[in-house]
Amino acid sequence: MQLRMQRLRNLLAGTWSEGQGDGATLLNPSTEEPLALATSDGLELAAGLAFARREGGAALRALTFADRGKLLGAMAKRIHEHRDELIELAMRNGGNTRSDAKFDIDGAMGTLAHYAEIAAGLGDVRVLADGDSIQLGRAPRLAGRHVFVPRRGVALLVNAFNFPAWGFGEKAACALLAGMPIVCKPAASTAIVAHRLVEVVADVLPPGAVSIASDLAHELPSLLQYGDVLSFTGSSRTASLLRALPSVVSSAVRLGVEADSLNSAILGPDVEQGGETYELFLSDVVREIRQKTGQKCTAVRRVFVPAALRERVRDDLVERLRDVVVGDPFAEGVQMGPVVSAAQRASVLEGACRLAEHATVLLGQSGVSPLGVPAGQGFFVPVTLLEAKDASAAVLHELEVFGPVATLFESPDDTDELVDLVARGGGGLVCSAYTDDRALATELVLGLAPHHGRVVLGSQKIAGQAVGPGAVMPHLLHGGPGRAGGGEELGGLRGLALYSQRTALQGDRALLDAIVKG
Amino acid sequence: MQLRMQRLRNLLAGTWSEGQGDGATLLNPSTEEPLALATSDGLELAAGLAFARREGGAALRALTFADRGKLLGAMAKRIHEHRDELIELAMRNGGNTRSDAKFDIDGAMGTLAHYAEIAAGLGDVRVLADGDSIQLGRAPRLAGRHVFVPRRGVALLVNAFNFPAWGFGEKAACALLAGMPIVCKPAASTAIVAHRLVEVVADVLPPGAVSIASDLAHELPSLLQYGDVLSFTGSSRTASLLRALPSVVSSAVRLGVEADSLNSAILGPDVEQGGETYELFLSDVVREIRQKTGQKCTAVRRVFVPAALRERVRDDLVERLRDVVVGDPFAEGVQMGPVVSAAQRASVLEGACRLAEHATVLLGQSGVSPLGVPAGQGFFVPVTLLEAKDASAAVLHELEVFGPVATLFESPDDTDELVDLVARGGGGLVCSAYTDDRALATELVLGLAPHHGRVVLGSQKIAGQAVGPGAVMPHLLHGGPGRAGGGEELGGLRGLALYSQRTALQGDRALLDAIVKG
Repeated sequence: MQLRMQRLRNLLAGTWSEGQGDGATLLNPSTEEPLALATSDGLELAAGLAFARREGGAALRALTFADRGKLLGAMAKRIHEHRDELIELAMRNGGNTRSDAKFDIDGAMGTLAHYAEIAAGLGDVRVLADGDSIQLGRAPRLAGRHVFVPRRGVALLVNAFNFPAWGFGEKAACALLAGMPIVCKPAASTAIVAHRLVEVVADVLPPGAVSIASDLAHELPSLLQYGDVLSFTGSSRTASLLRALPSVVSSAVRLGVEADSLNSAILGPDVEQGGETYELFLSDVVREIRQKTGQKCTAVRRVFVPAALRERVRDDLVERLRDVVVGDPFAEGVQMGPVVSAAQRASVLEGACRLAEHATVLLGQSGVSPLGVPAGQGFFVPVTLLEAKDASAAVLHELEVFGPVATLFESPDDTDELVDLVARGGGGLVCSAYTDDRALATELVLGLAPHHGRVVLGSQKIAGQAVGPGAVMPHLLHGGPGRAGGGEELGGLRGLALYSQRTALQGDRALLDAIVKG
Repeated sequence: MQLRMQRLRNLLAGTWSEGQGDGATLLNPSTEEPLALATSDGLELAAGLAFARREGGAALRALTFADRGKLLGAMAKRIHEHRDELIELAMRNGGNTRSDAKFDIDGAMGTLAHYAEIAAGLGDVRVLADGDSIQLGRAPRLAGRHVFVPRRGVALLVNAFNFPAWGFGEKAACALLAGMPIVCKPAASTAIVAHRLVEVVADVLPPGAVSIASDLAHELPSLLQYGDVLSFTGSSRTASLLRALPSVVSSAVRLGVEADSLNSAILGPDVEQGGETYELFLSDVVREIRQKTGQKCTAVRRVFVPAALRERVRDDLVERLRDVVVGDPFAEGVQMGPVVSAAQRASVLEGACRLAEHATVLLGQSGVSPLGVPAGQGFFVPVTLLEAKDASAAVLHELEVFGPVATLFESPDDTDELVDLVARGGGGLVCSAYTDDRALATELVLGLAPHHGRVVLGSQKIAGQAVGPGAVMPHLLHGGPGRAGGGEELGGLRGLALYSQRTALQGDRALLDAIVKG
């Protein structure tokens, strides 16, 4: 086992080096075998940030948007070249099935490639126009023009453990294309993939454009200063701590957050059991519960079905989820791996118990017998399906259990009441609604959109080609209001806003046009 | 004097009523004569917010964007009908000269009218499309579309004392057009204009769409909840307190801030003394120091001039500013009124002293002899011009003295060094640069834009029709990074984002198109 007790290398100030001390021990969550140590103790984090700001920032700003896009394309190519290795690392360190690992690695690659393509269309410009020229006075000569320019600092990318590759790819693509150098602070438990990914892509970028540090002490966020950006994906609790950082409270540092979300799937009362829309709903919900062992910020946590279909849905979900094969991803036939750590397993099991105080357990009570590992080993949890006894119980709408756990609700007949019930989640990333009734779809969109960053409408017309609600596409915004953190990632060029300053220019129209054209 | 000791009425839950207790005594800052009492003690603020969310929100959301625009048009018309009365109130309660008062009242009116015009072009829709349809799969049927929808709460508009009318108009136009009900909390010292303005416009709006409360206890911000927006203009210090509110830290409430800014004016080395560009620079700087007695968030605080022109600029500024006639705005010939309160006067005088520790006082040391008021009465301050002794002294770049006070700096020859010096302001609302050298203008824009919400380029070509940097136009974004708070107001439809949720819709293209078309 060549990976055994490898010490993850940090890239700071253009130099790869190892931290001191033991740091965190990274495990294979299926076997609990130690794989590597993560630490940045003793390294000069502040100097690393300063180098990134100075060297990386200047190098990126000297490039046009089109040229930065070429860098993203080269990063995607590098990932492609190392795809098999990265997939295996994700299976080993993340407990991912091969399919889950591909989802993560290909997600990173696809996102970088998508932004490379967008960038090619932007041309050789160094400021990005936001809208057209605006006439300000009576004569056309005095004009206004909005532009995006890179912020003059470093973007600290704090990622969650569930997508060490894709999470990096999403944030990196937007920050680098916007023209900001990045410093990555991956979650410790799955850091092997993140560190290897940066090793793989680093040398296609200018020195200082990308850095990575284990930073178990969470020192990096407190070292940020005016001009810097902190882009965070993780728990609401940590997000609240970051919002209270002095540099954030003073507004010197700009913060973007993607946090908790109790995403919902809604089945319309018009849908016939067994029909195409019904099958789309069912396969989406099953996938969103099982995939990545439920460790997705976009996973379905709440399922709303009309009274008339409740029993049928319950039976169908139980039947499909009951047969999910849990075990070591390297074992033949395994469909769902473990969660990522002992702490996550404890949190999922405890969370499921808290939900069960207000819900009937339909599936999951009997525990789990993982395939391919000795009894008692690994951080496995059962697929758990609950049915709300009291639909208004706060915990069912507010506690995100980050595992393969979902709760079934009976939808109120009244659409407004249904929307109010879904909205008790207090803001989420995505909500999906399955219906062929266009009037209902419209009403649901108007009601649900204020509470979600994305609303997915499933119907017969797209049943054959639908992308599930859990897949985060670079074309569309990722983020959500309230509990979900209030951030906006991706969505094409919209995702560059966090890393850019939008500035209104005011003056002679010809001059402004020339500046925008570069 | 019919205004004497009037008690300002609050509008909450659709009812006008007076608060209890004495609250704050509002004065005429020229004469120190008491004019009115502001208090909302004993009123049901939480019930007022709930009424606004429920009744005002539902009524506004039931309207299309075009119909909401008609409401804004009607508000502008009402202000026009009461223009003379409002101007006189602003002169009396705000210490505004007639010209300053018009700037405020007409600013409110113009902004509302501008948004009414924008809205007319949006048509009878209830969701606002953000960009075009995006193809997500191989076939064109599966599409994505971004839309803005109104947030489901109330927008609390906390305004600063300097623009009781315009500040209201800016925030109200964007919030109401976006579809959110508003509750106004004006600054106490100039609340007469704000309360009268709401009295004037309230009955053209649906019940609950607009409310106003004196709220001296600052209770309203802590009563906000998920779905609400807090839009704040004021000091950095208060902004930091608001950012630390539990509802903001948890991300339930969305916060927009426009705060301190040490705006700069830069004279290019190519500019010839006495030429058109030089005269534009000079008249802009003089106006931005004097207008509203320097109580403008966009006023020029720092002036950067090349070594070769330093003496000439110094002499010209001293000559023009020395003759500014200070006094009671109702006295004939007065060009600059008092600051708004005793506390503001103390703050301006103390701030000027702190600047003078690192700068030579060119003007202002001899105090002020106001016209039309008995000696010693009124909150008058002298026009104060300083010249930096140590250009790198932090206080000169970081202390916003909110009065007619500016500091002159000699520009470094190197453009990068000049940009770095300006950037020591730590983020500002606006920076103006005066040059006819297009290469220099481009270089300055690239350097200055990351640190400012707006960059104004003054040149010969637009000298005749230029709008000064201090005028906030509804077409262009108002806000800035860092010290300026990080918010984005106005800028046409961009200003609606704070009050909207941007949501990605995903599904059948024809259905999404139909939803967007309303």
